[in-house]
Amino acid sequence: MTISHSSLPADSYCVIMAGGIGNRFWPVSNTQCPKQFSDILHTGKSFIRQTYERISRIFPDERIFVITGAEYEEITHQQIPELPSGNILKEPLRRNTATCIMYAAEKIKKIAGTATMVVVPSDHFITNDNAYWKDLRDGIEFVRKNGGLLTFGITPSRIETQYGYIQVRTAEPGKKITAVKTFTEKPDYELAQKFYESGDFLWNAGIFIWQVEDILREIRKHLYDLYSLFENNTSLNTPAEEEFINTIYGQCPNVSIDFGILEKSNQVYVLRGSFGWSDVGTWHAFQALCKQDENNNTSNSSQVIFHNSHNCLVNVPEGKIAIIYGVDDLIIAAKDNYLMICHSKDEEKIRNFEKQLKFKK
Amino acid sequence: MTISHSSLPADSYCVIMAGGIGNRFWPVSNTQCPKQFSDILHTGKSFIRQTYERISRIFPDERIFVITGAEYEEITHQQIPELPSGNILKEPLRRNTATCIMYAAEKIKKIAGTATMVVVPSDHFITNDNAYWKDLRDGIEFVRKNGGLLTFGITPSRIETQYGYIQVRTAEPGKKITAVKTFTEKPDYELAQKFYESGDFLWNAGIFIWQVEDILREIRKHLYDLYSLFENNTSLNTPAEEEFINTIYGQCPNVSIDFGILEKSNQVYVLRGSFGWSDVGTWHAFQALCKQDENNNTSNSSQVIFHNSHNCLVNVPEGKIAIIYGVDDLIIAAKDNYLMICHSKDEEKIRNFEKQLKFKK
Repeated sequence: MTISHSSLPADSYCVIMAGGIGNRFWPVSNTQCPKQFSDILHTGKSFIRQTYERISRIFPDERIFVITGAEYEEITHQQIPELPSGNILKEPLRRNTATCIMYAAEKIKKIAGTATMVVVPSDHFITNDNAYWKDLRDGIEFVRKNGGLLTFGITPSRIETQYGYIQVRTAEPGKKITAVKTFTEKPDYELAQKFYESGDFLWNAGIFIWQVEDILREIRKHLYDLYSLFENNTSLNTPAEEEFINTIYGQCPNVSIDFGILEKSNQVYVLRGSFGWSDVGTWHAFQALCKQDENNNTSNSSQVIFHNSHNCLVNVPEGKIAIIYGVDDLIIAAKDNYLMICHSKDEEKIRNFEKQLKFKK
Repeated sequence: MTISHSSLPADSYCVIMAGGIGNRFWPVSNTQCPKQFSDILHTGKSFIRQTYERISRIFPDERIFVITGAEYEEITHQQIPELPSGNILKEPLRRNTATCIMYAAEKIKKIAGTATMVVVPSDHFITNDNAYWKDLRDGIEFVRKNGGLLTFGITPSRIETQYGYIQVRTAEPGKKITAVKTFTEKPDYELAQKFYESGDFLWNAGIFIWQVEDILREIRKHLYDLYSLFENNTSLNTPAEEEFINTIYGQCPNVSIDFGILEKSNQVYVLRGSFGWSDVGTWHAFQALCKQDENNNTSNSSQVIFHNSHNCLVNVPEGKIAIIYGVDDLIIAAKDNYLMICHSKDEEKIRNFEKQLKFKK
């Protein structure tokens, strides 16, 4: 089944959140070209390009917004030339997802008044597009009928400590959308195991759907400081927008939508997604997406040769030839002028490497 | 003290042996550019260029020969443009050092009749040039006065299993040149320890000095098959040389001068070298030449950063930035489009890597 633009209400908008700085995949991504603009999986397209192409099958370009750091305006234009330039929302500094969603919601309200808002991450890996489109349409239909804040959950396929979890209020087998009981960020292994076994917990996919008026009401209620900075503004969608945003952004709270709103609201629902999903948030998540050899080695190229090596992950530029001999548990990544070799157990440290180099200069 | 050309006899010649194929340092050296033509130590000059510059301080260009694989004629020209093109002896295939020395000795004999011949490797690392020049001059003087085959030995500074050893016949303290009792190739650790402790054993530096007539007589005696292939030829130093060499080379024995002649002759002497020396034959030998950090890590660049890592050796192109985190005992080398990561214990395998890639193609 193919879904066309016409099947979505004309007042539905999609916001692609692209605020990441890509330090966990250094040097394959870096502050110049964060993960969402990178092609870590070597598919031929960056994550944000893939996201845009998937979304643009059901939303027309004028109703797609990208919100990203001001310094990434140009790379966004380059990678999504189809997007009207006014549809790139530029953040002067990073203020986490609650502020980013407040900005986008307020902007859409000023364009459309009442509207449905779909929020998607720019840097996740999705398979089964038909299921994805169907889920989005079902979600849009749900919030337009019932109101509330709808999150997307993914049925866990393993014990995973690096994701956020959503607990459904009452497990109702076969029901696609249910009320949410709790949110839990990155549980320890024991807890993650209980979550996995209980069946009541879903991975938080970071995809949200709501009516603009509903999310604004909830932000007003739970993050009034943030709400008030935008209240009564006359600048959005005018030439004064950039200056207005630059003036207030520093005062906006640095809090996630999950922590700031979803965990506090009592009108939160979760849709059990039926598409394939990975946040590709770590090299381990990347590894889980890739084919492994008989010794659990992964690489992005057939020109990487493993001998007597185990549990290694190699990500090198197209055409690079590598021989890995007699080593175990390494993450090896190269790009441009950079080479990174790290023990798997130290993966958490990678996010600091680019900064360390800057300090060294 | 500076030694000039005039201090050496006019019938003394130097042969630089450059037949290596450089597979032990892959990918920093490779069959296109073997070790002798590479600048593994990042000094700004290749090994053969350094060797030439050292030798050319005491030999005029017309009395310096390089013997190398025919495929390396061009790179030799490029790196030593000063050398007359007739002074590059081209081997159509690899036939080890006895054949290579036979070819060079016969060629020099045809030029000069009686002559002194100094043979030096092209890919060793030498420090203290003044001591080196003095030792060569003493060696030349010795063989011109006494005859015989003179080798150069280096006083061992550690227990080393990867070198050849020369045992002096009678240890005569303070005497620079003594008769040789035995040769031993790559002893096991226990034996190397005995050698080190005894004081009677020197490392074989692969440097030889003899009168051309003496080495030819010994080859005639111990490797008559080789000698006879060159006997009575009228081709060397004529336009027919290349064809002659191409015709006979395949029939020449594949044997080293040490095994084929020096171990069998009873006229072998050793000069105790007073210069600094390393054959830089392995990454471990390379490591011994370099400054190590407090965790025994070595790299050729200040832009290689080690964290929580031990006993690692990194050799990357100039300007490459690398972060090595939480790993031990790795050899990491990169050049052009190649990356090699190998556990230290598997260093012996590196020599096969380039060949393996060829078979894979």
